[in-house]
Amino acid sequence: MNDNIKITYPSSEKVYMKGTLHPELRVGMRKVMLTPTVKVKNGKQEVHENAPILVYDTSGAYSDPSVEIDLNKGLPKLRQPWIDGRKGTQMYFAKQGIITHEMEYVAIRENMNCRELGIKTHITPEFVRQEVAAGRAVIPANTHHPESEPMIIGTNFLVKINTNIGNSSLSSGISEEVEKAVWSCKWGGDTLMDLSTGDNIHETREWILRNCPVPVGTVPMYQAFEKVNGKAEDLSWEVFRDTLIEQCEQGVDYFTIHCGIRLKNISLAGPRLTGIVSRGGSIISKWCRMHNEESFLYSHFDDICDICARYDAALSLGDGLRPGSTFDANDAAQFAELDTMGELVERAWARNVQVFIEGPGHVPMHKIRENMDRQTEKCHGAPFYTLGPLVTDIAPGYDHITSAIGAATIGWYGTAMLCYVTPKEHLALPNKDDVRTGVVTYKIAAHAADLAKGHPGAAVRDNALSKARYEFRWKDQFNLALDPERALEYYKSSNDVGGKYCTMCGPHFCAMRISHSMETCDQ
Amino acid sequence: MNDNIKITYPSSEKVYMKGTLHPELRVGMRKVMLTPTVKVKNGKQEVHENAPILVYDTSGAYSDPSVEIDLNKGLPKLRQPWIDGRKGTQMYFAKQGIITHEMEYVAIRENMNCRELGIKTHITPEFVRQEVAAGRAVIPANTHHPESEPMIIGTNFLVKINTNIGNSSLSSGISEEVEKAVWSCKWGGDTLMDLSTGDNIHETREWILRNCPVPVGTVPMYQAFEKVNGKAEDLSWEVFRDTLIEQCEQGVDYFTIHCGIRLKNISLAGPRLTGIVSRGGSIISKWCRMHNEESFLYSHFDDICDICARYDAALSLGDGLRPGSTFDANDAAQFAELDTMGELVERAWARNVQVFIEGPGHVPMHKIRENMDRQTEKCHGAPFYTLGPLVTDIAPGYDHITSAIGAATIGWYGTAMLCYVTPKEHLALPNKDDVRTGVVTYKIAAHAADLAKGHPGAAVRDNALSKARYEFRWKDQFNLALDPERALEYYKSSNDVGGKYCTMCGPHFCAMRISHSMETCDQ
Repeated sequence: MNDNIKITYPSSEKVYMKGTLHPELRVGMRKVMLTPTVKVKNGKQEVHENAPILVYDTSGAYSDPSVEIDLNKGLPKLRQPWIDGRKGTQMYFAKQGIITHEMEYVAIRENMNCRELGIKTHITPEFVRQEVAAGRAVIPANTHHPESEPMIIGTNFLVKINTNIGNSSLSSGISEEVEKAVWSCKWGGDTLMDLSTGDNIHETREWILRNCPVPVGTVPMYQAFEKVNGKAEDLSWEVFRDTLIEQCEQGVDYFTIHCGIRLKNISLAGPRLTGIVSRGGSIISKWCRMHNEESFLYSHFDDICDICARYDAALSLGDGLRPGSTFDANDAAQFAELDTMGELVERAWARNVQVFIEGPGHVPMHKIRENMDRQTEKCHGAPFYTLGPLVTDIAPGYDHITSAIGAATIGWYGTAMLCYVTPKEHLALPNKDDVRTGVVTYKIAAHAADLAKGHPGAAVRDNALSKARYEFRWKDQFNLALDPERALEYYKSSNDVGGKYCTMCGPHFCAMRISHSMETCDQ
Repeated sequence: MNDNIKITYPSSEKVYMKGTLHPELRVGMRKVMLTPTVKVKNGKQEVHENAPILVYDTSGAYSDPSVEIDLNKGLPKLRQPWIDGRKGTQMYFAKQGIITHEMEYVAIRENMNCRELGIKTHITPEFVRQEVAAGRAVIPANTHHPESEPMIIGTNFLVKINTNIGNSSLSSGISEEVEKAVWSCKWGGDTLMDLSTGDNIHETREWILRNCPVPVGTVPMYQAFEKVNGKAEDLSWEVFRDTLIEQCEQGVDYFTIHCGIRLKNISLAGPRLTGIVSRGGSIISKWCRMHNEESFLYSHFDDICDICARYDAALSLGDGLRPGSTFDANDAAQFAELDTMGELVERAWARNVQVFIEGPGHVPMHKIRENMDRQTEKCHGAPFYTLGPLVTDIAPGYDHITSAIGAATIGWYGTAMLCYVTPKEHLALPNKDDVRTGVVTYKIAAHAADLAKGHPGAAVRDNALSKARYEFRWKDQFNLALDPERALEYYKSSNDVGGKYCTMCGPHFCAMRISHSMETCDQ
């Protein structure tokens, strides 16, 4: 296991903001230091400082030089003191009018740069409490995963992104998965799903959880399926229940469970071009068909909720009948499952279990809006969490892009979290570079949606970067970028001058240079 | 010069479709051959043929094995017989009720797979004529560029993409630019802009034009600016006019000219974060300011039109005041220029000059719609041709993606052509691999828009690929992809089995495999 796993960002400092209601809170963020603007006016040099910019930071203690990282010991358990002596879920507390540590933490985190720049924000700790109480937002925070830094998933907050990692029976090992987890946090992944299906599922997950500063999700069916040696018909509520409890005990923060598949609705997928493309969905559908019985995930839904409530694990209702091609988008099978999920949302809330809803998949642009609107209506405002969607099927090898188009669009419409897609989707398991590309691509989609939704302070980073660009402060431009390393690498590929133009246009044809020279001739 | 420059696509044949009104027409397209579907039912093997799929083909004679390519001789002059003895522009003929060879050619080209599959289409040669007559569509086809295969740019047709190539004073040479031109055509670029600003502008352009099967655009100001040694104040109408005529003579199919900048509007860019970021726009603005005079591009607009009309070169009204950051989007400077462009459109049409309008740039998602709607209204339905737009500024190194999100969105809203952006935008000049990534990314954006607009037959390729995916016909899936080579390369990176699952999920967890097994248990 590689213990030299610290994260650094160029020209950045790790800083912490304190709480007010809970003064012991220390909310980590990244402060990007900028160089001054230097102008020559009437022959005199003027120097104007540029204030540092705060950036939402998912890298946890890995980017704090004062913390020693030991993967064998795991990360500091920052939430343990808050959890000790407390009993109930975030939703339960919210309904009681109690603002938890987690609620204030996310309120501070969501308001990056607002206090510093005097930007008005609707996001107060009380607003967070109201949103959690109403079920419109979820703070996934299993009491057995005290290492994770609180974050919030809801339409009235920053759009979040999830990263999938995990080995299959044919691929990678544990240390590679832990490295990928930290790597995902470095680039900005807000939550992490461990989708391992191979050997050592339990052990891999343990390593990830103890070393992961963001909430971790799983699909417990995968492990249950391994326990019955991949024979769907041998699955049972008992096997599934035991797996769920095992994973709750380890600290999994949210579970994708395909509870919305009803026996009567499976045949609706019959006329499809691409059938059932959800792994969990196909397994439980097969079980239903072979037993000719309602799925135990549906019939035991209240039991599932009771288990989750004990640990404050959140539920992510998996869309087992999501479309696997644009042809199948918005069909009867998909929407029948959504209706069932709406029913389950109310049952989860009655038990104070936080819940969000998974969505497609493959959807052409003109059919995206209907997905968002129907989900909001049928699921009573519970957060939506979508995979892409991919807006065309014809670009394997580029599906991070086909899906980022759909993700930005549905994020703008109100989707709270976007599940990333890497360039290897449909083709192979992602390597580290694919994870980086996938995460950065989804940070773009999420941020584009934040700008379009007018999230308080979202434009601060864009404006600071644009100002740096116009003033030829190249290093500031790179340091403010989502991927400073790649920006610098590309720049270096053809520039050895650090001056007031670049090889794109050469000195004569630089529009910004000419534009500046006009400012001078205005005087 | 590399003469071994032929283009091949896997499992594909070059085919030609004949005209009806003009039976001598031979419209090239690519036919992708598919393998049959093999199913086992009740123990018996059933084989179902899959019909080949036609794909819109921009690769010209380069993908025709029967044509010998000699870059020194140039491509066959397929339009020469149509042009000889004809006098007038496409718009002139359209207004006279005449359906030219070019009009029938594009009608056939736009209806890929429609005749074969009985798909209803609104695109007839007569419809093309009407759209050209009304100015809602442009067929850029300089009579001195008979090598180019006709294509159409208009909101009621397939969304097109433009590729920029060209050397700057600091970079590449002629052979590299010709190679990039053919490379762009290979991946699907519909038009090509040669933005060279370095030495040998004339010669580079000549090589490109003689060997380019798609329409070529330029920004003639760049060459005029070189002629006055990069001193904006030394520019004049005469220098510009001579340059324009020189390029018309060579066969440039459309010209980006920043005629819409009025002296009174330049100061509107004053409060901007990023000033003027258009090269042509900044040069002519500086000229206006230094002479304190209306731009000669504006005051000589009718003369420009008369020159273009003689060659049937189209005008692309450049948006010299486009925003260079999301902060500056939709501001007074940008929209004042758009108003002027609306005025110029009518003057161009009065002279039978085909014209389209360039658009931004950097625009957050919620401000994109206004760009499209205003352009349609102010410019009387003339086609819109946008650069992206980039929906956020924070991702240098990934601006093909930030801009593909905006491009797909504005394409869906009605933009006729999208100017590609490569990963190196803002950082360096693109190399060949960047061009490939940029073109494929923009093919995605354009195709996503075609699907959303419901273009006749647009979904055929998606559905064929999805069917291949579901049936584990891996090779068919790759061959139907926008980039078959990359899809195959990624697949091979972790699969050595060609079977009914892949390393992503392994055999047990393959949803499609389980879904198939349910079909069997249904019987």
